[in-house]
Amino acid sequence: MFTLKEIKEAAIRISPYIKNTPVFTSSTLNKMTGANLYFKCENFQKTGSFKFRGACNAVFSLPSDKMQYGVATHSSGNHGAAIALAAQLRGIKAYIVMPKNSAEVKKLAVSEYGAIITFCESSLDKRKIALEEILDQTGATMIHAYENEQVIDGQGTAALEFLLENGNLDMIIAPIGGGGLLSGTAIAVKGLFPHTIVIGAEPETANDTYLSFKSKKMVLAASSTNTICDGLLAPLGKTAFSIILNHVDDIYTASEQTIIYATRLIWERMKIIAEPSAAITLAIILEHTQFFKNKNIGILLSGGNVDIKTIAHYF
Amino acid sequence: MFTLKEIKEAAIRISPYIKNTPVFTSSTLNKMTGANLYFKCENFQKTGSFKFRGACNAVFSLPSDKMQYGVATHSSGNHGAAIALAAQLRGIKAYIVMPKNSAEVKKLAVSEYGAIITFCESSLDKRKIALEEILDQTGATMIHAYENEQVIDGQGTAALEFLLENGNLDMIIAPIGGGGLLSGTAIAVKGLFPHTIVIGAEPETANDTYLSFKSKKMVLAASSTNTICDGLLAPLGKTAFSIILNHVDDIYTASEQTIIYATRLIWERMKIIAEPSAAITLAIILEHTQFFKNKNIGILLSGGNVDIKTIAHYF
Repeated sequence: MFTLKEIKEAAIRISPYIKNTPVFTSSTLNKMTGANLYFKCENFQKTGSFKFRGACNAVFSLPSDKMQYGVATHSSGNHGAAIALAAQLRGIKAYIVMPKNSAEVKKLAVSEYGAIITFCESSLDKRKIALEEILDQTGATMIHAYENEQVIDGQGTAALEFLLENGNLDMIIAPIGGGGLLSGTAIAVKGLFPHTIVIGAEPETANDTYLSFKSKKMVLAASSTNTICDGLLAPLGKTAFSIILNHVDDIYTASEQTIIYATRLIWERMKIIAEPSAAITLAIILEHTQFFKNKNIGILLSGGNVDIKTIAHYF
Repeated sequence: MFTLKEIKEAAIRISPYIKNTPVFTSSTLNKMTGANLYFKCENFQKTGSFKFRGACNAVFSLPSDKMQYGVATHSSGNHGAAIALAAQLRGIKAYIVMPKNSAEVKKLAVSEYGAIITFCESSLDKRKIALEEILDQTGATMIHAYENEQVIDGQGTAALEFLLENGNLDMIIAPIGGGGLLSGTAIAVKGLFPHTIVIGAEPETANDTYLSFKSKKMVLAASSTNTICDGLLAPLGKTAFSIILNHVDDIYTASEQTIIYATRLIWERMKIIAEPSAAITLAIILEHTQFFKNKNIGILLSGGNVDIKTIAHYF
């Protein structure tokens, strides 16, 4: 069941471990967009992204008889680091399969939280095969990055916190990778305030959710998909898609160029580090100003884990 | 007179215009240093640095019969932008002399706040000559970046806010450029809590204040002085030096390499953008861990105005 009730329970379960992240505003960005922007800074969340909310909810929901076998997942970074820390906090083992080409800062984080890392080729198939082997060998419980119910409930707690502290938002925007954050957000928002609009943000060059949403049927991402938003490359999940179809109002896309520009604006003007995968929320506002004008907009600034040098090179 | 009373009056005068900046912590950096670090984030201050506090206090202290002639200063960036915005808020003219080689982001900020900019060669003499001409032509009131009493009082309001909200600090660290922030800080701290330690942080390669403090007489900076901390190149002010001699407990220096490392740590781990001139406060802790170990340390993270690409290149 995906209802506000489960998200509230998740919020209570994870509250000893997560940060209630601050909400930032920027008069410069308000001027540029003609809207009132409220940034929920999940880049300041533990492990540097909202993923810690879902990971924490899943790990702390694990029945005690499964604890000795640990948990396992595959991840290009943020979900892996989140599972690693959550497992460390619960005192259980974490096995993380990571593509070799993951950002260095993400590899480092996962290993610092004491997880056992297995590196593999970057294709989704190779990741799944490597993970299957680990599950067979260890008996660990697999925690999928976004197709897991507890994970989706956990991600919804960011919007829950946001709305409880900022009751006047006309809409909330979340980025879309596999759809875990957007679906959790939609359940929280529509459960609390049915008239608050929920918008998804996706890269123009990795727009499988946009196409699926518009055609109301699952459209697979092209295998050649590429975007600077490395956190948004995951294919849309089935569970997430069904929630998104029912509860999300619309999806907007932005070009790579605007995403880089939005990232730079956030770094330079707000003095905070956000991933391009997070800055895409501002990018869609910059590309669709008429729709967003004069609105009070809540932005889920989802994470801040980047190789700084690599991103700055694009500025 | 430099006493807590003037700093409290400054705090009231500027309170409608400045941000009460948040205090951030980082469990990773606490682990690395063995101390409890509290970062007062003046990089989130309006105009991106603490300089707005002093500028605001000076501009709003200006007698009404001087308003029509405006204010003027020379600055490589942060003080200039601060004066420009303060003047805009009071509805008066601001004339800013800037060296041609100032960071682009700083030039842009000054012009966006509506100031009249005059570019000059980067030597201090050339800056002074250009400013003298403007003062002659316009009758504007000169507001020195750190030798002005209202400016020093205004800078002290950051430590005042800090201590009123965090009463358990063993010490406060401020970076040293001309000495305005450190001297204002020392007056505020010693006025409120005489036993709280005040420490200055200076680049090893621009250590005129360190040498002056240790020898108790003014040592001029070498003309060849160079550091990545472009905000700390200003020669120590006479007024500031006399306050520092009387109220500051010690000064520590850090190497360029450690300053760059500290900057990177703040960006990567705290997900916020601080200037090297601000990150030097963390750098001295990293270089002198024994002295700072187990202490509750307040850090004035003074600003965040950088050409991001240029700094990231050093990482």
